[in-house]
Order: sequence, then C-alpha cells, then structure tokens
Amino acid sequence: MILDPDRFFPLEANARQLARELFATVAGLPIISPHGHTDPRWFAENERFSDPAQLFVTPDHYVFRMLFSQGIPLESLGVPRVDGGLTETDGRKIWRLFAENYHLFRATPSKMWIDHSFQHVFGLDRAFAPATADAFYDRISECLGRDDFRPRQLFDRFGIEALSTTESAIDPLVWHKAIQTSDWTGRVITAYRPDSVVDPEYDGFAQNIATLGEMTGEDTTSWPGYLEAHRNRRAFFKAHGATSSDHGHPSAHTENLSQSEAVALFAKALAGNCSTGEAEAFRGQMLTEMARMSIDDGLVMQIHPGSFRNHSQPIMAQFGRDKGFDIPTRTDFARALRPMLEAFGTDPRLSVIVFTLDETTLSRELAPLAGVYPALKLGPPWWFFDSPDGMMRYRELTTETAGFYNTVGFNDDTRAFCSIPARHDMARRVDCAYLAKLVRAGRLNEADAYELAQDLSYLLAKKAYRL
Amino acid sequence: MILDPDRFFPLEANARQLARELFATVAGLPIISPHGHTDPRWFAENERFSDPAQLFVTPDHYVFRMLFSQGIPLESLGVPRVDGGLTETDGRKIWRLFAENYHLFRATPSKMWIDHSFQHVFGLDRAFAPATADAFYDRISECLGRDDFRPRQLFDRFGIEALSTTESAIDPLVWHKAIQTSDWTGRVITAYRPDSVVDPEYDGFAQNIATLGEMTGEDTTSWPGYLEAHRNRRAFFKAHGATSSDHGHPSAHTENLSQSEAVALFAKALAGNCSTGEAEAFRGQMLTEMARMSIDDGLVMQIHPGSFRNHSQPIMAQFGRDKGFDIPTRTDFARALRPMLEAFGTDPRLSVIVFTLDETTLSRELAPLAGVYPALKLGPPWWFFDSPDGMMRYRELTTETAGFYNTVGFNDDTRAFCSIPARHDMARRVDCAYLAKLVRAGRLNEADAYELAQDLSYLLAKKAYRL
Amino acid sequence: MILDPDRFFPLEANARQLARELFATVAGLPIISPHGHTDPRWFAENERFSDPAQLFVTPDHYVFRMLFSQGIPLESLGVPRVDGGLTETDGRKIWRLFAENYHLFRATPSKMWIDHSFQHVFGLDRAFAPATADAFYDRISECLGRDDFRPRQLFDRFGIEALSTTESAIDPLVWHKAIQTSDWTGRVITAYRPDSVVDPEYDGFAQNIATLGEMTGEDTTSWPGYLEAHRNRRAFFKAHGATSSDHGHPSAHTENLSQSEAVALFAKALAGNCSTGEAEAFRGQMLTEMARMSIDDGLVMQIHPGSFRNHSQPIMAQFGRDKGFDIPTRTDFARALRPMLEAFGTDPRLSVIVFTLDETTLSRELAPLAGVYPALKLGPPWWFFDSPDGMMRYRELTTETAGFYNTVGFNDDTRAFCSIPARHDMARRVDCAYLAKLVRAGRLNEADAYELAQDLSYLLAKKAYRL
Repeated sequence: MILDPDRFFPLEANARQLARELFATVAGLPIISPHGHTDPRWFAENERFSDPAQLFVTPDHYVFRMLFSQGIPLESLGVPRVDGGLTETDGRKIWRLFAENYHLFRATPSKMWIDHSFQHVFGLDRAFAPATADAFYDRISECLGRDDFRPRQLFDRFGIEALSTTESAIDPLVWHKAIQTSDWTGRVITAYRPDSVVDPEYDGFAQNIATLGEMTGEDTTSWPGYLEAHRNRRAFFKAHGATSSDHGHPSAHTENLSQSEAVALFAKALAGNCSTGEAEAFRGQMLTEMARMSIDDGLVMQIHPGSFRNHSQPIMAQFGRDKGFDIPTRTDFARALRPMLEAFGTDPRLSVIVFTLDETTLSRELAPLAGVYPALKLGPPWWFFDSPDGMMRYRELTTETAGFYNTVGFNDDTRAFCSIPARHDMARRVDCAYLAKLVRAGRLNEADAYELAQDLSYLLAKKAYRL
Repeated sequence: MILDPDRFFPLEANARQLARELFATVAGLPIISPHGHTDPRWFAENERFSDPAQLFVTPDHYVFRMLFSQGIPLESLGVPRVDGGLTETDGRKIWRLFAENYHLFRATPSKMWIDHSFQHVFGLDRAFAPATADAFYDRISECLGRDDFRPRQLFDRFGIEALSTTESAIDPLVWHKAIQTSDWTGRVITAYRPDSVVDPEYDGFAQNIATLGEMTGEDTTSWPGYLEAHRNRRAFFKAHGATSSDHGHPSAHTENLSQSEAVALFAKALAGNCSTGEAEAFRGQMLTEMARMSIDDGLVMQIHPGSFRNHSQPIMAQFGRDKGFDIPTRTDFARALRPMLEAFGTDPRLSVIVFTLDETTLSRELAPLAGVYPALKLGPPWWFFDSPDGMMRYRELTTETAGFYNTVGFNDDTRAFCSIPARHDMARRVDCAYLAKLVRAGRLNEADAYELAQDLSYLLAKKAYRL
Repeated sequence: MILDPDRFFPLEANARQLARELFATVAGLPIISPHGHTDPRWFAENERFSDPAQLFVTPDHYVFRMLFSQGIPLESLGVPRVDGGLTETDGRKIWRLFAENYHLFRATPSKMWIDHSFQHVFGLDRAFAPATADAFYDRISECLGRDDFRPRQLFDRFGIEALSTTESAIDPLVWHKAIQTSDWTGRVITAYRPDSVVDPEYDGFAQNIATLGEMTGEDTTSWPGYLEAHRNRRAFFKAHGATSSDHGHPSAHTENLSQSEAVALFAKALAGNCSTGEAEAFRGQMLTEMARMSIDDGLVMQIHPGSFRNHSQPIMAQFGRDKGFDIPTRTDFARALRPMLEAFGTDPRLSVIVFTLDETTLSRELAPLAGVYPALKLGPPWWFFDSPDGMMRYRELTTETAGFYNTVGFNDDTRAFCSIPARHDMARRVDCAYLAKLVRAGRLNEADAYELAQDLSYLLAKKAYRL
C-alpha cells in the first residue's frame, strides 16, 4: 500500500487517535469544490481522457516545473511550443521520463496527490518507479478506455456535490450551457473572471472590451456602458450557475475614485495610455466596482493577488503563459484593501474571500482584517501552500485572531481532475490533525472539534460560496 | 471543569511531564504587570464593577471585533456611538447575544482568558453557552455586588506585586495621587505616554503642547522649553511611580537631527505645517530625545510600533478610536532604529524595550539587534500575538539569536482586569512548554530550565522594568 | 556527559527511534565544507593555535556579540581596537569572564557548538561554568600545545574531505599555493570573492581595480579589460582549487544592461561618481557578468545577500568591520534576480546557489524560483539560521515546493575551526529528524528517507559544488 492510512495525522499517539476519529466522521462527506480550473468541456462532452501522460504530466504545471528545474526540457514532456516546434508526443516516453525522475517529488504535495490518484482512482497501490512505469501506464491506459472512467462517471464516483470552473467574462459559456441542458445531474457551474476586461495591461484589453460590448449590446466605450456590460455578463454567468466572481490581480490594490476620476481613468485605459500606476489604479477601482455589484447581485467575490506571472520572458515567448513561471511576491493587504473595505467592508450583504501567496500576511494583516470586517473572509492556503505544512501554518497563523468562522473551508483550485479527491482528503486530514492537537493541548473541547470538523470539511465552503 | 489542567503543555508525554513540573514551581509567583491599560480610577475609588456585559463584552475590543466580524452590530453590544445614538443598555441582552455567538471564539485566546476568569474569578466551571448564559450572568452579577470583588480586593487576590497603567503626558494623574495617598498598599504605578505631544498628526497636537506648557510652566513654543517640559513631566510621572515611558508610533522610525534641524522641524510641527514625512521625522527625533532623557532619569523606554490605527474611517466616525480596527502592518526595524541606536544603543544605562506586530521581524531584525546592542531588549509577543501560538513562535524565532536574557518576561497589556491572571497563567505555561521541549530535545539542561522558568515568569520583568 | 546523544531528534518516541537509525548511517560520513571562512594560513603553516580565549571567544562574533549585548565591553574580551588602544590580553581573564556569562548562551547554537567542541575535540564532558573555567582553560591549553592539535591534524581527525575558504579577488593566494605545494594531502581550496572590485561603495574600490589590473596585466580602466581581468583571476583561483565564486551583496539585485550602458556605468563607478542606485545597478550587472563567466569556466556561483553590514558607525570606528553588527534586512528575490535569470537561468551549465537571511522569502520566492529555474539552487540556512529551529523551518518552508534536490546540503560558513564537526553533526541530526517526522506522518517512505539522509549529509554538497 503506498498510502499510509494515518497520513498527515499528528505523531503523538493521543492526538493521532483523536485525529483518526475526527476524520472518520468527515472522510465520506460530499466534496464542495467552489473554485478550480477543470475544463467544462470534459463534463459537456464526456469524452474519454487520453493517455496517462496527458492526464498526469503534460498539463500539470506543478509536475513539469519540478522536472524542468532539474534540467529536463519542457519539449521532452510534451509541453507545446508557441512556434509549433516539435515536442514529444509519445505518451509512454514521457511517462518513463516522469518515472525516472519521480524521486524529485519526494515529500511534495504533487507526489501525495498522484499517489492518491494511483491508488484510489486506478487501484495501483505499489510504488511508482522506473521498474513499474510501464505497468502503471498500461493499467491507467486501460482504465481510461472504459466508460466508468469518463469525466461524468468520475465526477459522480468522487462524490462531488458542486464544482465551479472559472471562465473569462467574454467566454460564451457554451459548455456550461451544454451541461445545463444535458440529462446529467452533476452540478458544474462557472465563475465570473473579468481579468481580461478590467486589466489595462492584459493582452488585447481594448479589443476584449469591444467584444464585451458586442456580447452585451452595451456601449462599452463609455464608463456607464462598460459597467452596465459587467452587470449584464454577471447576470449571464449567474444564469449558468455562477455564485462567485474571481479576480487574479498582481496586487490587492483597491481604489475608491470619484465618478469623474473613474471616467477619466477608463478613457485612458481604453486608449492604451495608462502608466503602470494608472493601470494599477484602474484594476483597483474595478475591484471596488465589483464589490458594489456583488451587493446587488449576490455573487461572492474572490481576490487572488500577489503572483508575478510569467517570470521568464524567454519561456513565455517559447511556451506561452502558465508554464510554472508564476512566482509569489510580497503582498500588502492592510493598505491595499482599505479603499474597498471603507466603502463596503461593513456591509453584511457583501462577501469577499481573499487568498494570499505571502504567508507573512496571514497573522499580520489578513487574520486581523477578517477578524473585524464583516464582508471579509480568508480563502484557504493557495497554490504552493495547498500542502500539509502550508495548511497547518495557515491554521496556526489565522485561528487565534480570526477564529474558524472567518475562513471558508477548502478549495482545490486545480486543473488536475483526478487530484480533486486527493486534495480534499489531504485538507480534511490536516484540519482534523490541527483540531486534535488543539484538543489534546487543552485549547478546544472535544465536542466542538467534531462540529468544527464538519464545518471545515463541508459546511463552511457551502455557506461561503452560497452553494 | 472547563480548563484542562495540562493546557498549553506539549503533547509528548515526556515533555508534558517536565512542563508540569516546571510550571508547578512558577504557578504561584507574584504577578509583575509592567505594561497595561487598566483604569487607575478603579483602584483609587475601589467602586464595584457594574454588570457582566460591561466587564467582559462592551469594553473588550478583542471580543466585540470578533462578534462584529460576523455581522453583529456594535450597537447591539452596547458600544457607545459618537453621536450619542441609541445602543443596547440591557446587560442581560448583550450577555445572551455573546453566549449565542461564543462558538466564534473557539481556540482563540479571548475564549481561554474568559473561561479562565469564569472558573478562577467567579467559580463557574461549566461551559458558557446559550443554555447557561443566564446562570452565568446571575452568578457574576451576584459576585460583583460583593465587597471581595471590588478592584483592590481582586488585585490582592490575583497576587499582583506591581501593575503599571499608561497615562498621557498631560494627564494630571489624580487617580494615581489618590492611590498613593490612600491606605491601600497595592502598587499601581503610571507610565509616561507622550504620543499626543510628540506626534504632529495627533488630534489637537498644538493645543496639547500648549497644555504641556501650562502644566509645567515652560515655554513650549521653543524647542529647549518643549524638551524641558518633557523632563518636568517625566519627573512628575516618576514621582507617581513611573519606571517607564511608552511610545505608540505608526513606525519604528528614529532620527538623530542636528540642533538646528530639530528646532526648525519643531517650529513646523507646532505651526501644523509638517508633511507626512516631516511628521514621521519629528516623531522619530522625539524617540531619540526620549532615549537621551532616559539615560538621565532612568525611565525604561517602550516602543510599540506598526499598528495602522482606526483602519475604517466610517467606523471611526461612528464609534471613535480603538474599536478593533487597528491592523498590524509591515514594520522595519533594522533601518528605522539605527539613528537612535547609533547615538545611544551601546550605552548600558539606557534600556529600550521594543515590541512588534510583524512577526517576520523577530528572527530577521529584532533578535539580531537585541543580540548585540546593550540598550535593546525584546518585549513579549504583543496584542494579537499574546496567544499560545504567538508566544511559542516568539521563543522559537528569537532564542537562538538573542537568547533569553535579551527578552523581558511577560506583559499582559490589557484593559480587561479579570484577564490578568489568565494571561500570566498562559504565558507561564507556554514558556514552561517551550523549556520542556528544549530539554527533551537535548538543547537545554534541566537545571537551567528551572532557573529560566523563574526568570521568564517573574525576574526578567522585574529587572527590565526596574520594579 | 554534556551532550545528549539524542539531541535535535523528534520528541515522539516513534520518530525519534527512526531519526536515530537514519543518523547512524550518516554520522560517520566525511565532511564536505564547501563554503567557510577559516584561515588558509593555518593549514599552510600548521602552527599551533594560541590560547583557549583566542580559539573560542575573541575571534567569534557570535560569542562576543552576545556578551556585548549584556553590557560586557569588547575590550574586556580582547577584541582589538582600531586605534590600537588597550584591550584585555590575559587569555585566562577573558576565559573566566566568558564562563561567568555562559548562561547567556542557553539554547543558542553557539553553546551547542562549543559544548560539542569541548566534549569531542578536548574530551571535556562536564558543564562549562565559573567553577570549571580554570580546569577547562588548562585542559584546552595543554591540548593546544600538542602536535595532534595542530590545524592539519585536526582537519584530518575531523574527517574533512574538502574545505573551501574565501579570498578576495585580489588576494595573492600565497597560503593556498603553500598548501598545494606541501606534502600534506588535505584538500583546502579557495573561492573567488570579488566584492571589493565589483562594489563601487567598497572602501578603496578604484584602487582595488587598479591592483586588479596590475595583477592581471589587463587594462582595468576599460570595461572589456576589466571583465578580462576577472576572467584571468577566476582562472587563477581555479588553479588554486576554486570551484565557486561568492558574492556578498547588500541585496539580490541583478541587471542585464546593454553593452553601452554597462560601459558608461563602469566609467562612472571608476570615477567614484555613482549614485546609490547606480552602485546597486553596477553590482547587479556584475552578478550577471559573473553568471556569464560561470557558464564558460564552470565556477559555481554563490550569492549571499541581505545583510546590513556594520550597522553601528561608532562600533565600526572603534573596532572595525565584522564585529557582530551585521543585521539581516528584508530581501526581495523575485524581482531582483529576474534580469539574471531571464538571461541565463534556464541554462543547465550554470549553477547559482542563493542564500537568504530573510526567512519569509523561503516559501514565498526562493522555493518557487528554485523549483522551476534549472540554474538556481537553494543554499542551506545561513548565519543566524544555522541553528536547529532555523534548519527545521528551512526544510518545512522549502521542501513542498522545491523538493530536496534543488537544495545543496549543508555549509558551515564558519571561521571557528573547531565548530566544523559540531555544525555538521547538528545539520545531519536535524535533517534526520525532519526525515523521520515525514516518514512517521506518512509523507515519505522509509527507504527514500535513508537515501535522502545520504544526499543531504554528503552527496548534494559534493555535487552542487562540483567537488
């Protein structure tokens, strides 16, 4: 067996026993996956997944970035080149290369998710290694050929109660429409992601706004028309199940400009004349505008700031965006969120969920802010911190100031479909470990721990995302 | 019993047993409370405390901020409005609301302090919950009506050897005078807090300085007269027991200006013409001036930087200062303290105790600075970090570089009188837990741990604050 | 016995037992010491060390800074004054002062290293204290008089396989030459440290560059000649065993300037006309130039940024550089390293090892960067973080994102020769403790842990430094 049944539980026998008991009460709860990046087309068309390398290696930036860091060319992993140049297409070759380098992943969450998928999804409970690579490949390939491994069947088998993907504001949502009108009852919804039409530095910003105008029939060359177009699209997304919007900004900067300032800044943005600071201001103003709209239409707002995207220009030029070259940066929240929070932060109708890639902000800024502003909640540990130590630090750095009820349960944030149960399993185990340690240290009573285990595993996410 | 007798001790049996034994040697030591915000009037007049809500909920920003964060209006908790508008006055209603939401405080220090007070001060050893709210209210109300629950009687029962409050430089100290001239022997002293007369951005700065002039007979429109007025007030505070000054600045910025620069800056400050940077410079210069005066008069200097006060202007307008909207910010010490430290930091007559709300500075800047400058000591974990995890991180992040003897024991920093024994109990337990773990990991010998337990619980605070 | 045989191992019995077993397999491995500051003259001349105070107290900034922080004058510890003024010369008096204050070091790495040296190097296994000070002094003095305590004999006895010192680019390397041409087989090599000729703010920068020109026969007044002189010296260092260069900059800032910009900036630097920002840019450009040269000559590049050197000007004036007044500062890597990484970071021939004194960068920036750029590796916890908690935090903050194989094993970075075995012992124990905890938490399998113990203790350092 490759998975330890007590994985992620405390080492102390007493606390471990309680963690086991707590986990037993939540292990089987349905999965709420309110934020992620799976492809809605999978569930619309329900086509078979292709080969194991395409499932586990080529599209997973956690996996190929680690291999690349040790000198393995992205081409040899099948990652497509921008220029259409040759890359490896033989799934088995990629798979063997992965197996030869699987030791690089020791003690990383990627290995834990993949081992979990091997065992729980594909029934492979030996160690993955060069010697077993072919057997694994064959077994997974065989499974992928079966009907019970199609996306909808896995969705149901994983016990997913609701799953949100994320689409651009100008996405036509055809796959979501297809899912809605199908006879399948799985709940796959979208989330409103307007980055490409609120960020003056986004590729094709003006064109995107023109498209937004066409899609909505609004005059998006005027500030009121532009805002109205957002309202229109938000309603369209809501009609396709959306309960949230999502904002991936370089910083958490917000603004609360006067009408005339906003009009002037929008004109500049549209004309492509924004300075760096003005682009930042425009994005910041749009967060406040989104908050204002949220109060009206009830979409929960998610802010994901602080990633320095596409750090290497040469890699960006050769392989494009999202190739593992997004690097967290120091992030300010106390000053950055203030304009929005002063405007709307005490309005209990608003719900803003904030994520961070800068753990120093957890105890210093985010827990104190979430522990006082009714509108603000803390998203779970994100991205590189979706890991056993990341999760444990998150609880240790936020609970004493913000409590549990200003947090929102777990998000998997993944595009790796098979890792969803693995990630929720890990999150539930780590939370149970944390609760068990608190009980054994006399800091929480046992009955409360059982209630909290339910809250953290299921109820809080459902409530926070209005699902 | 709601309190676990082994609370905050390590989970490992071996270390837990030693922590117990260490704690047994310090549990009964007198309390040194060298920095806090209790009201000296309590001890001067020795009037009864009013109802339970006024004791535990309405004045405690830790408590009402958490309730507010979950959408409970401050008015319903009895927090007074600036405009005198209606707020809840029925203590029992506030109390029930508190009980209904007590689950929000799970695993927070507030709950641990309050449970401790319930059990140790009021003999209530059941769980506080909606079902028991009225019984708790009745029991506490009944106690508060008794003479043995008056402030001085509690002070004596708590085993407090010395307690310092904090007063503005222009406070007349009438309550401290009354305590001094009473027949009660409890040691309640003041601390010199000149924020309102050293910060050009403080409300009424110029008027405060005029008042300072009137109180001292000095010409506070001149730089030398202004400094002399500080010396005069410091002496007055010393005569009322003060052994320390306290400085609550937005940053740790210090300056060491020439005489002529200081004169010019003071004139600007007095005229209300300082830019933001000049106000910062003036505050920074005054820290250096305070250090200079400390060398002469022996007052220990405390610096509490890095809180972004009154983060929400709307809340400030409706409810005033100190309503839980003070948010920690990133704080620099290495550069900020340098001018003062270069001037006086190697003078062993000077003692400067620095606190932080930015835990990242502990291992990076503060421990290295305190581990070399004779004048500098590290204050205990402050405010949001006055908590089991905050305390443990503090030791783990400072001991290896600064040792134990560049730290100063524990401060409770509270305005919640009943929480004082609870906070010292927690601090002593966490320190014993830390020491026990070091011993069991072969990093400290056992005899030294017993000596350190005394030092951390009692002796270091007494020595550092010259009490 | 003063050393606990289970020191630094986990407290939980199960994990402790495994840590013991892991450590048993690596305790006797040879020491790779690829970065440090021992004096090559020791090994060239093989003279006896002088008295115990000169071995343990006077030259060790960890030791004298802590004593100074508690008011003990540096003069009384024998630290030389710049003005040649009197300082203590009686080794025994210094030694007794050290013993009287040894409690200051409780739970610090200094005490652990010194106790280890006492026991393992000098056979002293009682507690060091005032009562035993003289006996310790006599015993150590007696040993130092013996031939088997000469530098080369200790080097061999310590099991050092390779040791690198660090020399200025304009050092003639006479001691290394002498070691090379001696009949002793110990491998003591140098490392290329060009700070004094790449930093326009370094004392005597222009003169140093003139010297560089004289030593190499290159025209160092021209940019191409200056670069050629570096190439020349790097080759000279390689001929004396160097496998690495080392760069101690105030920040991690890099630049990738055009040829004409670099020429102009060099001219300004040489003329002493650089602004602060231009000096930063020049240093940053030189890191990129060094990377370019590394690709050609194979020297591994080490970057040690973020120390605010000589924080107190008065101490600098009285006692000179390196007197314990170097304070870590907040350090940026994500933006700072980008120009160099964009230029050369994906070239697998390049190897850049980065160190930090700002632990917040470990999980936020450094692990994500090292986890994707093939050229980048993470150096071990440095300086104040060369400690049990520093090492454990380092692993906990880097492994999940960068894995183990983007780290490079342990460096002792010391000038305290006798502490070398102590430091490697500590590092190996802490790594085994970490591995054991991972195994017991189901996050790593046991066989992998045994392999990793070898890697972290020996193989990674050997490979990373090309030794």
